[in-house]
Parts: sequence; C-alpha cells; structure tokens
Amino acid sequence: MPYSDKYWQKEEILPRRELEEIQLKRLKWVAKHAYENVPFYRKAFKEKGVHPDDIRTLDDVARLPFTNKNHLIENYPFGLFAVPKDEIVRIHTSSGTTGKPKVVGYTARDLENWINLCARCLYMVGIRKKDVFQNMVSYTLFTGGLGFHYAAERIGAMVVPSGTGNTKRQIQFMLDFGTTAIHCTPSYALHIKEVAESMNIDPSEIGLRIGCFGAEPWSESLRRKLEDSFGLKAYDSYGLSEMNGPGVAFECEEQNGLHIWIDHYLVEVVDPESGEVLSEGEKGELVLTPLTKEALPLIRYRTGDITYIMDDECSCGRTHPKIHRILGRTDDMLIVRGINIFPSQIEHVLMKIPEVGDSYQIVLTKRGALDEMTVRVEVKDEFFTGELADLERLKKKIENALREELGIRVNVELVEKGTLERFEGKAKRILDLRR
Amino acid sequence: MPYSDKYWQKEEILPRRELEEIQLKRLKWVAKHAYENVPFYRKAFKEKGVHPDDIRTLDDVARLPFTNKNHLIENYPFGLFAVPKDEIVRIHTSSGTTGKPKVVGYTARDLENWINLCARCLYMVGIRKKDVFQNMVSYTLFTGGLGFHYAAERIGAMVVPSGTGNTKRQIQFMLDFGTTAIHCTPSYALHIKEVAESMNIDPSEIGLRIGCFGAEPWSESLRRKLEDSFGLKAYDSYGLSEMNGPGVAFECEEQNGLHIWIDHYLVEVVDPESGEVLSEGEKGELVLTPLTKEALPLIRYRTGDITYIMDDECSCGRTHPKIHRILGRTDDMLIVRGINIFPSQIEHVLMKIPEVGDSYQIVLTKRGALDEMTVRVEVKDEFFTGELADLERLKKKIENALREELGIRVNVELVEKGTLERFEGKAKRILDLRR
Repeated sequence: MPYSDKYWQKEEILPRRELEEIQLKRLKWVAKHAYENVPFYRKAFKEKGVHPDDIRTLDDVARLPFTNKNHLIENYPFGLFAVPKDEIVRIHTSSGTTGKPKVVGYTARDLENWINLCARCLYMVGIRKKDVFQNMVSYTLFTGGLGFHYAAERIGAMVVPSGTGNTKRQIQFMLDFGTTAIHCTPSYALHIKEVAESMNIDPSEIGLRIGCFGAEPWSESLRRKLEDSFGLKAYDSYGLSEMNGPGVAFECEEQNGLHIWIDHYLVEVVDPESGEVLSEGEKGELVLTPLTKEALPLIRYRTGDITYIMDDECSCGRTHPKIHRILGRTDDMLIVRGINIFPSQIEHVLMKIPEVGDSYQIVLTKRGALDEMTVRVEVKDEFFTGELADLERLKKKIENALREELGIRVNVELVEKGTLERFEGKAKRILDLRR
Repeated sequence: MPYSDKYWQKEEILPRRELEEIQLKRLKWVAKHAYENVPFYRKAFKEKGVHPDDIRTLDDVARLPFTNKNHLIENYPFGLFAVPKDEIVRIHTSSGTTGKPKVVGYTARDLENWINLCARCLYMVGIRKKDVFQNMVSYTLFTGGLGFHYAAERIGAMVVPSGTGNTKRQIQFMLDFGTTAIHCTPSYALHIKEVAESMNIDPSEIGLRIGCFGAEPWSESLRRKLEDSFGLKAYDSYGLSEMNGPGVAFECEEQNGLHIWIDHYLVEVVDPESGEVLSEGEKGELVLTPLTKEALPLIRYRTGDITYIMDDECSCGRTHPKIHRILGRTDDMLIVRGINIFPSQIEHVLMKIPEVGDSYQIVLTKRGALDEMTVRVEVKDEFFTGELADLERLKKKIENALREELGIRVNVELVEKGTLERFEGKAKRILDLRR
C-alpha cells in the first residue's frame, strides 16, 4: 500500500535530521555486520586500524576501507556474503563477458527493501495501478529486469514482462495492450522510435506517458528528442547490481537531478585518484555504502561513476538529496592528447545539432605519437542531400562545436542513417584503436 | 511458511470429501464470475441453455460450454478478462510464432495462488531453503520462468535466474554456486549432459539432487537416462499458460503420475472428437476449469493434452488425484497410414535401445499415395564403429522394435552423434513433408 497519493513510503519525506539519525544507526549496524561476518572486512578494518565501535558520527565513514569491483571478483562467488548460504534467496551477476562475473546475493529482507526502493522510483514519476508497464530489458541475471518487474507489480500496474528484442512485436504489444509506461535503455528507446517510423506508426500516437531509461549514460538533448518523439516524460534511472540493482537514485518530476535514497545508501563523492572525500557540488567518483543489505554489505563501494551532489530543496517534497545525472565512468573517461573527455560531452554537442541523426561513434587512433579523435555521425535523411557543399558545411559546423566543448581538434565523418550498429542493451560507442 | 516438513499447504492433504466441497463452492463462484463479467461466456451459457444457478453438483460442470484456444485468440488481447484492466498486475503470452498470441492476465490474488501452487510442486519433490535452484528456462513472457522463480524464492531456496542459453556458463555456475536443483526442458537437460561431457565434467559429479522437467512430453526411458547421468531424481512438471502456467500438476516422490491440484482446477477427461466426458482410466483430452482465477476464468478449457486420471491412493499422503504423464497432444498426434501415433511412443522405444544416442527426428513423406515414416536416429559414438554389418544389424533391431510398438513399418536411418539439431526450448522432432 502506498503511503499517500504522492509518496510510496513515508521515509521519502522524513526531515533530513531524522534521516541522518537512521543513517548513523544503520551505518553502525552494517559496519559491525560486515566486520563480524565477512573475513575480508575484518582484515581490511584491522589494516586501516579501525573498528566498527569507532563510528560515532556519519563523517566517521571516511575512516572505513573502500571496496571495489576487484574485491568482489577476487572473492567470487560468495566470499563477501555476510549471511549463511541458506539465507540467500536470489543471485544476480554482472554481465561480465570475459572472466568471472560479479555475483550479488539477496536475503528475503534485502529483496523486500529493494522492491520498495524501486517502487518509490516508479511511483515518484507517476506510475500507478492503472498503468501498463512494459519492461523491455533483459530479465534473468541482469538486475534491471526483475528489479523493476517486482516493483511495478507491487504498485499494481499491469506488467508486460516483454524483455529485449523483437522490436516490431514490442510496438504491436504497446498498441494492443495500451502501454503507458516503458523501461529500457535510452538507445533502445531511440531504436523503437526508428522502427515505429519504419512501420508508419507515429511514435507520439502510441500513447506512452512515462519512460524510465537507465543502464547507460545519456544526455539532456537525448531526453528532449525522446520526449518530443513519443510525447512522454523521460526519467533517468540509476543503480548498479552491487547496490541491489536499479532503485538507488531516480529523477522526480522536476527532472533536475536524481533523488538518492539515503536511508538505504550512504553517499560520498571522492577524488577518483586520491580517494579523498569531496564537498557537495564537487565532481568525483560516487561511493556508496548500503545501509540495510544483509547478504552483501559492501562498505564504501567505489561505483566508478562520476557525478556530484546537488543538495538543494526539491519542489517534489522529498528530503533525500539529489545527484547529478552520471557524467561518465572513471574507466570510460578518455584521455586524448592529455585532455579528459567523457563521451557524454560529445553526445551533448551532437544532440543539439538538428541535422544529426540518432547514432554516432567515437574512433580513436594514433597519427605518429599523437592521438587522433574521429567522430562518425549519422545524418538525418532529409539533410543527406548528396550536395557536397552542404555536407562539408555541416561537417565544419560539428567540428567547430566539438572543438569548442572539448578544447581539442576533432575530425568528423558524416555517414548515412542506418550505417552504424544499433544496440539493444548498453550502446558501445567507442572504438579505441590506439594500442 | 510451509504447513509442515512435508507439505507446503494444508490443502494438499484434505480429505477428498472436503476438497469436493471446496470445488463445488468454487465452481459455482467461477461460473457466476464468468457469466456476469465476460460477455463471451454470457452468450455461450445462453446458447447451451445453462445458467450458473443450474450448478448443483460437480457433475453439472458437463452442462457448461467448452473454451478452446481459438476463443482466446479471437478475443485477443483482453476480451475474456473478467476484471477491469487496472486489477491486472501481470500479462503473459504464448510463444505464438505466427499470428496473434494467446494473452493471459493475473490479478494480485491470482499471482499469490499461482506462487503457492508452484511452491507445492517444488516442495513436494524436496526443494527446501537450503537448496540452490537454477532456473534454466525463458523468463519474460513465457510462464515457466517467472512461475517457478517466484515459487522457489517463496520457499527460500537460493534462486539462480540464469534463463536459457550459454550452456557452458550454466554448468560453470552449477559447479561454482553448488546448484542442487534445476528446472529446464528434458531435451535441454540432455544437452547439458553432452556439453558437460565435452568439458570433461562427469554430470554425476555436479551435485544435482533434483530435476524439474517440463514444457514438452518425455518418456520413462528418458527419465532413467537423466537420472543415471546426473545422479538426480527427475520429476515431470505439467502446466499451461491458460491455467496460470506451471504448477497445475507435478509428480511426487513416487514418480508415478502427477498430482493435479483439484482445489484450484476442476479436472475432466473428454473424448477429443465428441467432447463426451470419459471415466477414470480412459484416455482422452484433459479439460480444466480453473476454480480460483479472477482475471481469466476459462470454463472447461480444452488443453489439447492427452492423458487419463489414475485415481488411486498415493503413498505420499496427498489426497489430490493423479493424471498420467501427458501421452501426446490432440494436435501432435500423427496419422500414418490410418494409424494414430504419438511421438512419445517412438521416443519410448528408442530410449530403451542402449546404442541409441540423445537425439532423433521423425520424417514423414509420401511414396505415391502411401505415407512413409522415417526415423533418423543418432547413434552413440562408441557404437558408431564404421562396421557396416554392425550398423545394419542395429538398424534392423530398431525397425523391429518400432514396428512392434506402432503396428506399422518404419524406416530407420542411423546418423552420427551431433548430426541433428539441438533445441534449448521445446524440441521440434517432427518433419512432415507429406503436403
């Protein structure tokens, strides 16, 4: 049962001071839980010369050791679990195409918390009992599918667990079932738009009200494009399997930053190099400590995601702080001729140029000792006139816009619509041929 | 919480008389529910000259109209739903490769009933909190995946929602996670055996205790082969999406017939041609009336599955009658030179012959006006010696065994292991080239 017409749980609007009291109590619990039940943490705490009893304030979290994805992989499969195996009711894994995946586990209570956190997100953007929610991401081991599936079902929406693939059938189902809300990657949403158009269906006639998009970074300009095409409101979803999955942070109707549920996740932003804690507003790596996870209490987990905390009051009434949409990944960051570049910056520039189509690719090569960056850009059909002078002008326009944003020279190569590979999961847009 | 160490719910062992009282009460409810809320049924009842109030005994079910899969398809997508759309929390569809699929819906209470019915089945064969349950069927729109997923989770087993495909990784997960119970099609289980052997892993060393196999008909001989290879106990699972999905009937540890949960499904067996109700022990088409389904109360649904009721007391203590494992489908039944043949009969013969490998195919052709049946059979490597005389002897042996079982002459063609296509879902073993 929802707490009210507007909020799924009452914790969403607790005064910040109360939230912080909850956080401190839970931080003490989780540190003790990890220390007592996971040999890895007992050792790591001892090496840092810290004991769970040393936690007196929330700032004391900075005294605890970090966890990173290699620790998970080195302890594959269950080495960081803090409960006996028979208390685990669910396993998920990272997609890890090569080598050992990251394995995460859940107790029944972890699942219950996770369902409610995901339901907070979906309810926040207006998904209700009357909605038809088509969940177009991979089910099975990926957390994105089952995570929102359970949550939408809990809210009482009609869940269409259609998974990935067969885009024409997905569109047919939307029309036949009266789908009002969708969940997929933003690149798949763009693909749906293209396929609908190829079927002579105007995407805005499908009847979608709400789009929940996650699992890859995307831009404000892509949001506008999706909203304009489908006539929906598009919301950014953030999560990672190490923190249950989706449901860590999500945009509210303001669409300006993602509320992060601090009664379940303690948030820090650190310098990715030094690990030093940064202040509100400073960009750095998001570090999360789950405060309620029984199965897998990962202390100060290095997410690898770059963002910053935007802690101002929100008109939606929720008291949980917001993070800026993810700017990039510490390991996605491209260093080109010594300059740090996030692919999202490039996407942002491209999406502002009306002639640019729905797909692009970044190719990095070496010319002698120097890095060369080429951006391959699809041009919309109506602008692909075959007039060389027009194309040359467009190429120059994009090159100038990119140089202005990035501070370095970039080559642009224009290609016809449909030339570049489409992705149903996370888009792979970077081709680094420098080694 | 389970009812006891042995039974998931107390309804499993209610005296038959009490079960029948429940059935009658529920039959009256479901007939009324369908009549009042589904125009299709109001019309069909009127055409049969029957009214829900006419139901006084369980035998009165025979006065009600049948439903078949075409009725579902003609009323695509929601025409047979008996509740408003906003009460539906889940949609599943049949795989329907061409044309419109069958769409089924669930209220929150339907889901709750379904989870418990599936949990009865898994608990019946010994799956407990301590087990690791690897669910190797398709998730998303197919009912088999989510159906048992929720149930195993409810029991508290560690659920590995690994879905289909990537067999080597499936086997690696079994070893790494300590999987003790699996759910998949029997043909996929055979495929796992072959892949494990190709990885130099003895299937019996994997540690599996329990195999739940469904979604296609299989034989006693295949059961023995799977049990011997993996060192597990193999159980037959029966269900169909029109009756929620899996969890309609399931074998108990006796492995002699499938208990069908008659407090939720009223069972009849009818003559597939005349529709006349047959007696206990007589083979015919299974007809089910769901007694508790709110969303989709399909009255006297023609399953198309051929079986019979084996209503003797069971040593397991459950009071629900058993049906024989499915003998075939009314629409699978092959008519070859005027003789009715079920593919399961052929499988049964083949699996008893030690030289026969893991796959076979039935090819039907015409020679002039006459039907010709050829069975292509994979021979185990160790018997594929290249000695023509040996192969000829084996061919004759299989041909004789098939003629004895089927009463008609059959050609056998021997092929090497690995020649025939493998299937991860339902096996497609019949190639009918007669038209």
